[in-house]
Amino acid sequence: QKPRKSTPQTGEDTLNGHLPPGWQSYMSPQGRRYYVNTFTNETTWERPSSVPGTPKSPPANSPSVLTVNGYHISGTPVHQLDSGHISLRKASGDPQSPGSPAAPRRQSKESSLTINCVTFPHPDVMPEQQLLKPSEWSYCDYFWADKKDSQGNNTVSGFEILLQKQLKGKQMQKEMAEFVRERIKIEEEYAKNLSKLSQNSLAAQEEGTLGEAWAQLKKSLADEAEVHLKFSSKLQSEVEKPLLNFRENFKKDMKKCDHHIADLRKHLASRYAAVEKARKALTERQKDLEMKTQQLEVKLSNKTEEEIKKARRKSTQAGDDLMRCVDLYNQAQSKWFEEMVTTTLELERLEVERVEMIRQHLCQYTQLRHETDMFNQSTVELVDQLLRKVDPAKDRELWVKEHKTGDIRPVDMEI
Amino acid sequence: QKPRKSTPQTGEDTLNGHLPPGWQSYMSPQGRRYYVNTFTNETTWERPSSVPGTPKSPPANSPSVLTVNGYHISGTPVHQLDSGHISLRKASGDPQSPGSPAAPRRQSKESSLTINCVTFPHPDVMPEQQLLKPSEWSYCDYFWADKKDSQGNNTVSGFEILLQKQLKGKQMQKEMAEFVRERIKIEEEYAKNLSKLSQNSLAAQEEGTLGEAWAQLKKSLADEAEVHLKFSSKLQSEVEKPLLNFRENFKKDMKKCDHHIADLRKHLASRYAAVEKARKALTERQKDLEMKTQQLEVKLSNKTEEEIKKARRKSTQAGDDLMRCVDLYNQAQSKWFEEMVTTTLELERLEVERVEMIRQHLCQYTQLRHETDMFNQSTVELVDQLLRKVDPAKDRELWVKEHKTGDIRPVDMEI
Repeated sequence: QKPRKSTPQTGEDTLNGHLPPGWQSYMSPQGRRYYVNTFTNETTWERPSSVPGTPKSPPANSPSVLTVNGYHISGTPVHQLDSGHISLRKASGDPQSPGSPAAPRRQSKESSLTINCVTFPHPDVMPEQQLLKPSEWSYCDYFWADKKDSQGNNTVSGFEILLQKQLKGKQMQKEMAEFVRERIKIEEEYAKNLSKLSQNSLAAQEEGTLGEAWAQLKKSLADEAEVHLKFSSKLQSEVEKPLLNFRENFKKDMKKCDHHIADLRKHLASRYAAVEKARKALTERQKDLEMKTQQLEVKLSNKTEEEIKKARRKSTQAGDDLMRCVDLYNQAQSKWFEEMVTTTLELERLEVERVEMIRQHLCQYTQLRHETDMFNQSTVELVDQLLRKVDPAKDRELWVKEHKTGDIRPVDMEI
Repeated sequence: QKPRKSTPQTGEDTLNGHLPPGWQSYMSPQGRRYYVNTFTNETTWERPSSVPGTPKSPPANSPSVLTVNGYHISGTPVHQLDSGHISLRKASGDPQSPGSPAAPRRQSKESSLTINCVTFPHPDVMPEQQLLKPSEWSYCDYFWADKKDSQGNNTVSGFEILLQKQLKGKQMQKEMAEFVRERIKIEEEYAKNLSKLSQNSLAAQEEGTLGEAWAQLKKSLADEAEVHLKFSSKLQSEVEKPLLNFRENFKKDMKKCDHHIADLRKHLASRYAAVEKARKALTERQKDLEMKTQQLEVKLSNKTEEEIKKARRKSTQAGDDLMRCVDLYNQAQSKWFEEMVTTTLELERLEVERVEMIRQHLCQYTQLRHETDMFNQSTVELVDQLLRKVDPAKDRELWVKEHKTGDIRPVDMEI
């Protein structure tokens, strides 16, 4: 009898018929049933069939899984990020095209909101805006307004929030690489210890077939060590380094991007200030003109009439100024709008790329883990073979042949 | 494209037809071909079949393997150690029974040999001795003579050599337990490190489906740690302790056994000395009788005749003494012979038992290793599942819903 703690679970076996000869069923620590061939120590999750030729399991065919650009999708729709399909035009006032999905209902509780220095009336008063990329939750649709930070002290622009997300993503990627590095260290340490123990001389004098099996068991630790070293070196080259090196200048690029958008915002603000100034100037000119017109009604002097002409000219000029300033503001606004849409879509693309990249390398990690366990399992196969060949009678023969002292037995003494 | 170093080996595939969709073939570091399902990361040594229902491999049936008392034998004959089948009689002078195998040819180059204080003539001169257990290389047949040690200084009895073998075996068993203990320590250390790393907060802020997969990957290290801890605790209870505790008092028992045989040898030696003394006394008496008989021939006195009678009586008495001493010697010799056969057969049985015991526990070791690799492999299964569910679009949706600042876009200013 083998000195096992867990006794074979025969409950299922009597229900579903018997296992093939030599197979026993056990429970894993996680409560999952597995099967052990007591002759070969083959161990498997799959119930062995007693009918030869019956498959343990059908080959893995997953017709519902599709591959798109190396990215496996099961059931979820593919959101194509084709920015060429959207026109970078402002939708304000555009009639809602029939059949297109409605924009999600906004639930702003304030009666006005500030975007780029312009205070807008409550959304309900405004004409309904069509989302640029409806049903996609695109960055380009949801980060137009500014936001107070958690303490309510500083205002953060929507774009700033997107940028912070990108930088955090970069940080996560770096931390994952660090995690993998720690794992590599653990594997190297483990391999070092196994290798060292493998070279230990304990019980090296065991002889015969048992001695061979024992020597192979010790050697198997060196094989295990090699498997784990391979794992750690592949972790480094195929997981850690790619994670670490992906987008080396990302932070710098993001800063450049940030500066560009910030410059545009500043430009926009100065244009807005110019508009305000021109509007004020126009108001003054109009007041002046009005005052002089009233004076004319009282005095009717020629000189006043000339002054009115002059004031009217100046007022018209101020009106033209305002028109020009508004036009410049609108130009800057338009530029900013286009830049915002282009850049947020680029950030969106970068984020998809990052998630894909990380997913791929974590898949690489699990594959290396799978391989490691599989290679590891094969390191004891030769030990199993030699253990099956252990034969005390043969060992005795070998030993007796080498150490025998003589087979002449004593006989009775005769006088 | 996955960032793999080793490119798929397609040589075999074009020869033997194509693999099912999604499967790739690779080379292991040991140069063995294995197969990876690129969808599920399933990894296997066995070439997956593209025809559903075709078995990966037939169920393991080894009809040539028999189990005898928990000991698996493949092909080698079973040597039954049934001491009841041999008569513990000395075979000296017995006629060789026809048909029984001949004893192996002895190649002693000396013309005499000493066994238990008796010097025997050269074996060729002696009647052929039948082995007690022919064709078994039994301890009871080959350790009758004494042997000089490697320096040629001390003589060691055959029995002593058998005893040393037993004690060395006990030592080997102890050293194997030590080796397993070292392995346990390595596993505990490894598990501790994995568990610690698993609790590390690196990249804990990763969000969405990728965040879930990452969290599971980190958790899988704790699962691995648990698997290795289980391995180490089972190594302790099912391998180390049994190896350590098997025959706790073995050394003491062996010493007792040694003393017993040594006492019998000493007894035998004193009996031999008595025989020598009696033989000498008889020789003297015979000389005395002979001398007195010669004196009688010369003198023919009555007194001398009486002395001759007395000398003859004493000589007869000395002859009887010698007979008695030889008889006692032969009794001791017989006792020693029986004890030797019984004890060497017992040692032989103990050695078989030891080899069987060690073999079983090393099998237990490989089975635990198999289980560990299998359980270990299952720790990444959930990670694989979650990695397959990673969806950048869904992650964006979740994040945008939480962090969006506003979807009202700026519009052109009008005066």
